[in-house]
Amino acid sequence: MTGRHAGRLWGLGVGPGDPELLTLKALRLLRAAAVVAYPTLEEGSSFARSIVAGFLPGGQRELPIRVPMTTERAPAQRAYDAAAVEMAGHLEAGRDVAVLCEGDPFFYGSFMYLFGRLAERFPVEVVPGVSSLTACAAVVGQPLAARNDSLAVLPAPLPDAVLRARLAEADAAAIIKLGRHYPRIRALLEAEGLAERAHYVERATLPEQRLVPLAEAGEVAAPYFSMILVHRRGEAWRWPKD
Amino acid sequence: MTGRHAGRLWGLGVGPGDPELLTLKALRLLRAAAVVAYPTLEEGSSFARSIVAGFLPGGQRELPIRVPMTTERAPAQRAYDAAAVEMAGHLEAGRDVAVLCEGDPFFYGSFMYLFGRLAERFPVEVVPGVSSLTACAAVVGQPLAARNDSLAVLPAPLPDAVLRARLAEADAAAIIKLGRHYPRIRALLEAEGLAERAHYVERATLPEQRLVPLAEAGEVAAPYFSMILVHRRGEAWRWPKD
Ligand SMILES: C[S@@+](CC[C@H](N)C(=O)[O-])C[C@H]1O[C@@H](n2cnc3c(N)ncnc32)[C@H](O)[C@@H]1O
Ligand SMILES: C[S@@+](CC[C@H](N)C(=O)[O-])C[C@H]1O[C@@H](n2cnc3c(N)ncnc32)[C@H](O)[C@@H]1O
Repeated sequence: MTGRHAGRLWGLGVGPGDPELLTLKALRLLRAAAVVAYPTLEEGSSFARSIVAGFLPGGQRELPIRVPMTTERAPAQRAYDAAAVEMAGHLEAGRDVAVLCEGDPFFYGSFMYLFGRLAERFPVEVVPGVSSLTACAAVVGQPLAARNDSLAVLPAPLPDAVLRARLAEADAAAIIKLGRHYPRIRALLEAEGLAERAHYVERATLPEQRLVPLAEAGEVAAPYFSMILVHRRGEAWRWPKD
Repeated sequence: MTGRHAGRLWGLGVGPGDPELLTLKALRLLRAAAVVAYPTLEEGSSFARSIVAGFLPGGQRELPIRVPMTTERAPAQRAYDAAAVEMAGHLEAGRDVAVLCEGDPFFYGSFMYLFGRLAERFPVEVVPGVSSLTACAAVVGQPLAARNDSLAVLPAPLPDAVLRARLAEADAAAIIKLGRHYPRIRALLEAEGLAERAHYVERATLPEQRLVPLAEAGEVAAPYFSMILVHRRGEAWRWPKD
């Protein structure tokens, strides 16, 4: 245990992209934190930081976490190790560290890797945020799930057989982490007869947002920030009335 | 189609309970709406309205929707029918109607029933909110899902066989709508050996919040606003480091 004056580690959900989808709580804590940390691409740009850029009061220490984009694990582990050491220094000195997390910190967020390294030694608090799951449903304009529907969240890198089995059972599904998996996923949904009730959504709630019924989407170059929602029912009037 | 001056129907996600988990966007639209609608219990209290009570500017028309709490469908249908007629009147007169939705409107929300009645005739927009799913994970203090985990959201009224099958496959799960189903769900999770990695959460983010590891929860009288999260992994240090 560290001394009673240790700082607190905050995982701040900053929502799916539109800065107005920040919560009042995240905004307050963001402004109050001595240190603001965020993941960045190797060249330095950070999606999470760009969401809150207009709210930063200035004068805070910033701690970019450069996570190499590779499927090998060791380079990412080293980046999180180094960031955790730097954060521990601030926390031990009594400074609060706010980690900016795209969407919600605990919904498939990389905050987990810092949490896993620091939660035993320092007080950690997570401020939930609007996740891309419900943001995508909102922009598509169709309910995700209702009543006793079961809903499955499925990362696209899962094997076809697993995806097929889960999709056959769930009433509604969200397939996340599309990127280069898009052509495979689209073919799979077409083969299962699900393309007609699926939507492809890219960069939901941002000005560059795109959304297309999957049956009309064709061979798009899906970025990492995209997902496919498979709805149980189609149009609004088919939804139950009570 | 109604005239070009028709009002807009807003589904405003107001988050899981803590008023500070409202988004900046929901706050802005809530304050600007001519009419504020919300579901209430028969005696008149409304959870959604209570969340935003401190933000209402005064002078707005309020439209409580009294939904009878019964398992029969006809009384609820009549309540939504009547509310939709009243809302259509405001929308036709060019007044925006903001429907307050606990959590996120399209994540198992009753907003769907108004959406199903009005979306063909009026412009509808949904402002996503922090859902109880990620709010419960935040208060438990454990990531919901990571990497290629699959996550299942399962309403407690589903039959035991369905729940058992889905729980056997999913890496993580949230069982919502507990209420009177709690004893059955707890017994089922114990029988499946999952109680040790499950948490029971009641009224997350509210002052009355309760959270207990399921193995220690015993025979609680679970309210409607409670859920059980089943985590793939246990403590923080068991989470992957990259
Ligand atoms: C590592 S997960 C992080 C999710 C995030 N923590 C959240 O709560 O939304 C990244 C995946 O979320 C989805 N995603 C995140 N933001 C999105 C957006 N604005 N539009 C569409 N999908 C998005 C994509 O599927 C992406 O591959
Ligand atoms: C009809 S669903 C509506 C969910 C809501 N639209 C959302 O996004 O969270 C109601 C269920 O959500 C869960 N729930 C909602 N608010 C909660 C809270 N504050 N704490 C725990 N569970 C909650 C409970 O399982 C409840 O039975």
